[in-house]
Order: sequence, then structure tokens, then C-alpha cells
Amino acid sequence: MEKNSKQLYSTYTSLMQKAADLNYASAVLGWDLEVYMPPKGAEARARQLATLATQAHEILTSNELGRLLEELSASDLDDTEKNNVRLSREDYEKNKKLPSSFVDELSRQTSECFNAWVEARKKNDFGIFAPSLSKMIALKRKQAELYGYSAHPYDALLDEYEKGATVALLDPIFSGIRQQLPPILEQIKDAKQVDNSFFYQHFPKQKQWDFSIDVLKGMGFDFEAGRQDYSEHPFTTSFAATDVRVTTRVDEHNYQSMLWSCIHEGGHGLYEQGLPEDQYGLPLGSPASLGIHESQSRFWENCIGRGLDFWKFFYPKLQMLFPEQLAKVTAEDFFKAANKVDPSLIRTEADEVTYHFHVMIRYEIEKELILGTLDPMDLPAKWKEMYNKYLGVSAADDKTGVLQDVHWSHGSFGYFPTYTLGSFYAAQFYAQAQKDIDGLLPKVANGELTGLLHWLREKVHVHGRRYTSEELCTQITGKGLDPAYFLDYVKDKYRAVYGVNS
Amino acid sequence: MEKNSKQLYSTYTSLMQKAADLNYASAVLGWDLEVYMPPKGAEARARQLATLATQAHEILTSNELGRLLEELSASDLDDTEKNNVRLSREDYEKNKKLPSSFVDELSRQTSECFNAWVEARKKNDFGIFAPSLSKMIALKRKQAELYGYSAHPYDALLDEYEKGATVALLDPIFSGIRQQLPPILEQIKDAKQVDNSFFYQHFPKQKQWDFSIDVLKGMGFDFEAGRQDYSEHPFTTSFAATDVRVTTRVDEHNYQSMLWSCIHEGGHGLYEQGLPEDQYGLPLGSPASLGIHESQSRFWENCIGRGLDFWKFFYPKLQMLFPEQLAKVTAEDFFKAANKVDPSLIRTEADEVTYHFHVMIRYEIEKELILGTLDPMDLPAKWKEMYNKYLGVSAADDKTGVLQDVHWSHGSFGYFPTYTLGSFYAAQFYAQAQKDIDGLLPKVANGELTGLLHWLREKVHVHGRRYTSEELCTQITGKGLDPAYFLDYVKDKYRAVYGVNS
Repeated sequence: MEKNSKQLYSTYTSLMQKAADLNYASAVLGWDLEVYMPPKGAEARARQLATLATQAHEILTSNELGRLLEELSASDLDDTEKNNVRLSREDYEKNKKLPSSFVDELSRQTSECFNAWVEARKKNDFGIFAPSLSKMIALKRKQAELYGYSAHPYDALLDEYEKGATVALLDPIFSGIRQQLPPILEQIKDAKQVDNSFFYQHFPKQKQWDFSIDVLKGMGFDFEAGRQDYSEHPFTTSFAATDVRVTTRVDEHNYQSMLWSCIHEGGHGLYEQGLPEDQYGLPLGSPASLGIHESQSRFWENCIGRGLDFWKFFYPKLQMLFPEQLAKVTAEDFFKAANKVDPSLIRTEADEVTYHFHVMIRYEIEKELILGTLDPMDLPAKWKEMYNKYLGVSAADDKTGVLQDVHWSHGSFGYFPTYTLGSFYAAQFYAQAQKDIDGLLPKVANGELTGLLHWLREKVHVHGRRYTSEELCTQITGKGLDPAYFLDYVKDKYRAVYGVNS
Repeated sequence: MEKNSKQLYSTYTSLMQKAADLNYASAVLGWDLEVYMPPKGAEARARQLATLATQAHEILTSNELGRLLEELSASDLDDTEKNNVRLSREDYEKNKKLPSSFVDELSRQTSECFNAWVEARKKNDFGIFAPSLSKMIALKRKQAELYGYSAHPYDALLDEYEKGATVALLDPIFSGIRQQLPPILEQIKDAKQVDNSFFYQHFPKQKQWDFSIDVLKGMGFDFEAGRQDYSEHPFTTSFAATDVRVTTRVDEHNYQSMLWSCIHEGGHGLYEQGLPEDQYGLPLGSPASLGIHESQSRFWENCIGRGLDFWKFFYPKLQMLFPEQLAKVTAEDFFKAANKVDPSLIRTEADEVTYHFHVMIRYEIEKELILGTLDPMDLPAKWKEMYNKYLGVSAADDKTGVLQDVHWSHGSFGYFPTYTLGSFYAAQFYAQAQKDIDGLLPKVANGELTGLLHWLREKVHVHGRRYTSEELCTQITGKGLDPAYFLDYVKDKYRAVYGVNS
């Protein structure tokens, strides 16, 4: 009996790892597609990705796996094994709902849609993207039907990225944003404004790159187990905990473009590198959820990277690299500029307050697109209307408006809300880290980030998918997600930056 | 009946293309492994490559494919379809001889062996490589047994790279080299020596790179359907005719290191880009053989790239890029230096005469390793002995001796002879091209290479595997491989370079 369980579990592991091999191979092809692939390679790459996805899906929905999981559920397993089997079984039930032909179609459409988005961005013309996007939305609607849902079809898609998240849960959070953030914005608007004009001088590409590598090293990113490359849109992908790729982009006339995305992706990368290697291909070797993933990137980008202490250490180095550009800028000026609040058009360059309006707009639009109450052709108009209403800004063109994000071209509907969840979790974790780690901020100011990384490894990374986002949050902080932490964090920060006192 | 054939053929195409998707995915992973992968990624990459190879092998040895091919062989097909089915059937019979478990083992061992080779080269210590190599040789011997052979186990491995090539066929060619090339070498040795010392000045990396891109563009390499990157050992790989990757390396103190390998890989790349796109995944969309592949790289590298006419066009550009280094060097000096004959240690940097001694040595060693009459541990000694005997040179260490080539670490035994076949086919094709294309050399001297590329496309590239090497050679030149063409080519060249008159 004991021996039989071991054999069953080992067969289960082999199957899961075979599927993982195929999925990680897809990740390599996807990385190359966005980083190095020449344009004419797109068509063949699309079919190769479709085949890999189909092959992996066949394994993950095979009757063999189903039977194994059923038998294993009744077997004598240790705690780690039990959790893997439990989570795999949940995935299996979900995967079985998508026929291979649908997975294949979705993969092809994703490649086509991504290429259309690249082309549309290049030509600054949403019309080029719209037909592909419409097909994608139809597929996502079909996916929601295949998964099934009780209240809202969008719930079925949300669950893909954040297990348990629903419209019923998120609506209050986003309405909270619509209610509680505007007063803070108003106060800031009336305060003495922050000057961040020095960011928009000329910062040569190579030096920006060099500093980004130094920052990633300082954070603890292991370059023996990962690398950074350029891409149109920064992203993180993993081919194993031992091979994690982050990408970045450079705007020589806007230093912020690279800086924050680099720290952000670095946070994602550290999470992937911290997943347990011996759980390769298994649930406990995979990230908990997108919300938790995003909590790691935002923890580093916002709580640490936009904090004064971080720059006490890194700013003198930056100043040495760009003596002309930064001669008259102090570390405190730099900190304030890094936190300038200014309603703007581009989500990825938004400050920490207005950011959540960007997410809220996409959330509301996605719900409508999936419900079918908004025609994709009307997206640019809807986009302008909402940006005007909530942020008081208006995109001059599609590239800085509705075409700015890659997500929809990837078919990632239900993904954006995890950004806001990530910020909220990050703020709550950050408050806890300051309690748990003696003298955290002085250490940060000294460039000593190892203890912090160790804390994140132990509290978050090492658990993989063992706990849900809410369980993990409770385990780390003693309670589930509480938006009050984010509000407090924001108020503290803007007291320091703008002298406002809410 | 007619309709049934079409359906069968379409099912066959789908299966073949699915296997091709997996194999091309392996090629992407293999490319990344040698070009960008961080060191700790090696282990996971090895298992991912093994899974992809196994999955492709499963399709290519499936009973489903076997039945399809049998039915299709008796079906009413057009000429192209017939040839695809005929060749797939031959492959199928061969593939069926290797069990999945063996393919998997070989793939894993290949990754391990490659990593050991990289490590051994870095540390300049053959001992690090030897255990992995021994395991690899044992596997190759097993592979020869699984394939079967009549005269020599090495024949079974040769056939993998050059269908129909055998020890019986190659022994006379290599003994011809041992007999006919030494007198030419002797004459050159007694002639006025060529000065190529200018190649060993400092040539900055970026400028070398820029010129290599210009040369590839001049040859007609399509950068919309391919790219060049750096790697330890230059190679060409393809993910479709529309996505072909060449790699190169730079030695800032030896300009030849990059220059010739870049033109060489460019020739391989042009062949891959010239394969018919509509035959993706099918035999007629694949290269004819390694010998023919090599004929394309050597045609460009040697017949064209080391010709005076090529440099009449490119040399002024090169001189502008390196005015200091090349101020006192004329195009004719450059041409002569490019063809300096000098017995040396490194195969990839050898001249066109001594090159074939490098191949002959490897050929003789491989036969012994596979027969088991040479212990891998004795390789460094055997290597030194043969280099002394045939080239009169002696490697100071493993890195410039027995560790210089990547091939054995990839398990490619039987590959080296195709280099010599390639040179011989190239010389024969080159003689024919001069007959077929009006004023070929003046055109080359004018930088007009389009007509030549068109000729190669039409004569070689477009046929894929439709013809064997010998059939193709006969179709293009009116007869099978005749070593006399290479001898004439070499004599002509060295008459021009050294004034010798054999």
C-alpha cells in the first residue's frame, strides 16, 4: 500500500513534469517571440506555440492523469504530496472543461492577435487590431461558458488569474477606489507641486542598462539563474526557478520608463527564482496567484523602490553615472519626483494613486466586453470618455490610449484587477515586514536587502501554490486583505512627499 | 478514391507538421541554450529538450503514421506528394528502429555532454569532458546497432547525415587527400610566403559586427526572416524557412575568426531561407543532406568569399571601416592573406588545403572510437600524434586540440566527413555556376550577388530533399561527385596566390 502510493505519486510527477516541459518550452518560444524573433517568423511561431499548448493540454486532461489523481486522493501521502494532488485535481477538473480544439484555436488567435497589436501600435491605428480583438473576445466569452459561472461570465475568467475573485468581490474594491482616492488626489492637487522634469533629460541607453543591472543585482536577482533583455513591453517569464527572464525597455528621454519597470519585473523575477526547485512542474513549485505575483513586483517597485531609504543607498551611484543630469538633484528631490502624482495617459508610468483608476477603467470595460454590452469598435471612444471622467486626461492617439497594453492581445481578460490586488497585498505585507524585520528601513538605506529577500522567500516564495492569496495573507499578517493598509501607506507616503495630512 | 487520397495526405501533413513544430521548438530551446541561457538553466533545459524529442519521436514512429504512409504509398498522388511520402516512409522505417526510451536518453546525454564540453573548454581540461564523452560514444555504438549496418558500425551513423555515405566510399576519398594534397602543400611551402599579419591587429568588436551584417545583407540574407547573434561556436539553426538564426563569434585580435565563419554560416542560412515554405515540416521542405548543406556554406565562404572578385567590391568598404589597420593593405594583399596556407591547430580557421587533413584526422578517430579500438581517455594523445604526423603541428593544450569542436558533445559522429564532401560539391557547383551565369565573376566584383543566389535557389534550395546529394549533383553538373573539380579549383587558386604551377 505504502509502496503503491509512492509509485502512483511518481507516475503523477512524471506526467506533470512532462506537461511542464512543454509549457516551459512554450515560454521560451514566447520569450523569443517578443524579444528576438524576426517579423517573418510570426506565422510558423504561432503554429508551433499552438502545437505545444495542445500537447500539454492533452496530458493535463488525459484520462490517465484523471485516474491517477482519483487514486492518489485516497492514498496515504505526506503533506506536500497531498497539497500537490489536491491542487492538481482542481486544475484537472477545470482543464477538462476546455476541448483540445478550443485550446489550439485560442493559442493561434493569441499569436495572431499579438502580431496585430504590434502592427497596430506601430501604425498607431486601433482599426488594425480591432478584428483580431473581436475574435479574441468571442473566444474568451466561449471560454467563460465552457468553464461555467453563477453570477457573471467575467467571474469565470477572473478565476483563471486569481482563484476566488469575482465581480461581487471586486466591485466594492473598485467603488472604494472611486470614493476614497479622489479626496487624496484633491489635496495633492492643492499642495506645492513636485518637480520631476530632470527625469526627461537625455539618459544614454547603455548607462541606463548598466544601472538597471546594478539595481537587479542589489535586489538579489541571480544572474546565473536568469537574465534581462529588451522588449517592446516589459515582462517576466520563467523556464524553471533556475532560468528566469525579465525584460525592460528604454526611453532615452524619459528615465522613468525603464527604471520602475526594471525594479517591478525584478520583483516578479525574484518570486520565480524563489519557488522551490524540487517542486518543478507541480503546484507547489508554481506561483500562488497573479495577485500575489503582483504583490512581489509592487513591493519592490513601490514600497521599496520608490522609498527614500532605497535611494539613500542607490542615489549616489546613480548620480555618479549621470553627473551632468543629476548634479543639482538631491536624494530627497529624487524621492519626491519618483512619487509625483499626476493624472496621465499611460498605466505603466502612472503614480501609485492614479494607477488604480487605470485599472478600474480596464476592469469596467472588460466586464462590458465580455458581457457583450460594448462593441470592440467603440473601444477608443469609451476609453477617451472614461479617461476624461476619472483622470481628466485625453489620449491624442490610439498608441497612448487603447493600444498601450499588451494584455488583451494575449487574451488576458480578468488580469488587470490583479494589479490592484497586488498593490493592496504589497502594502499589507510591507507593514508586516517592518514589524518582523528589525530596523528594516535603516538596512534598506544601507543597501542591505538580503534580509528582506529572505523574509519574502520564507513568507511567500517557498510556499508556491500551497495557500490561496487570502490564506497566505492571513498567515503572514494575521488577517485577510484589508484595503486600509494601502490607504494608510498612500497617506504616509504623500505626507512625506506633498506635506498633505489627511 | 481521389478524395480519399487527399484526405489521407492532409492527415499525413498534419502529423508531420505537428512533429516539425516540436522539433522546431527544440531548435529554439537549443539556440537559446547556446546563445543566451544562464548557466543554472542547464538542467531544466536538458529535461525540456528530452521531452520535446520524445514527443516528436512518438509521432514520427506512431502506428498511425505507419498506416497512413502505407496507404499513401498505394494512392494516387502528384509528384511532390509522392516524393514526400516516399522519403517519409524511409525515415519512418529508420525511426522505428530507435525506442522512445533511447531517444530520450540520447537527448539528455547530449545536453549533459554539451555542458561538460563547455566546462572542460573553460577549464582547458579534457578530463572534465571524458566521462560524458565515453557515455555518449557508448550510446552512439548502441544507436549503430539499433539502425543496423552491413560492413562497419560507423556506416550506420554516417547515413544519418549523408544518406548513402559509407566507410567504403569515404576511405578512398580521404586516402586521395593523403596522397594528392601533400605535393601541393610542398610546392606552397617552397614558394614566396604570404603575409597575413594584418589580420592580427586590434579590430574592435562592434565594427566587426557591423561589417558582418553588411556582408550577410550583401549575400542576400533576409533579416526579416532571420538574425545573427553571438555564441561560443558559430552555428546555423532554423525554426522555419521564415526564421533562420546564424551565430558568430569575435576575436578582437584575429579578424579572421569572425569573418569567415560569418560568411560560412550565412551560406547555411541562405539555404534554409530558400527551402520551400509551403513544404513546412515535410521532406521537400527540408535540406537535402549535410554534405549539400555544407556545399552551400563553403560555396559562399571559399569559392566566393575567399575570391579576389568578392573583395574588389567589399574591400573598399572594409578599408573605410578600419582605415588604420588596413591603410597599407591592398585588395590583392587581402585576397592572398585570406588564402594563406599554413598548417595549424584549429579546424575552423584552417585554409582550404590543410582543412581536409583536419577532417581526415577526425574521420579516422571517429571510426576507431565507434569500433572501440580507441579509448576516449587516449584521445588527447592520439590527437597530438596525428596532428604531428599530417600537419606537423602540436597543440599546447586541450582547448586548442581535442576540445576545439562542439560536435562530439552533440553526439554528432559521422558529421565531420560531410565537411569534405561539402567542399568537393561546392567546387563542382562553382565550376558549373561559372558556365551557367554570364559574367559571374565581374558581377561578383560589382557586388551583384542576386543572380548567383537565384541560381543556387533554383538549382539547390528549392528542391529540399527531393534528390539525394548525388542525384542533385548529377542534375546540376551532368555527373556525380568528381574530386577532380576540387583539385582543379585548389590549383587555380594557389596559382593566383602563390604563383605555383602544379
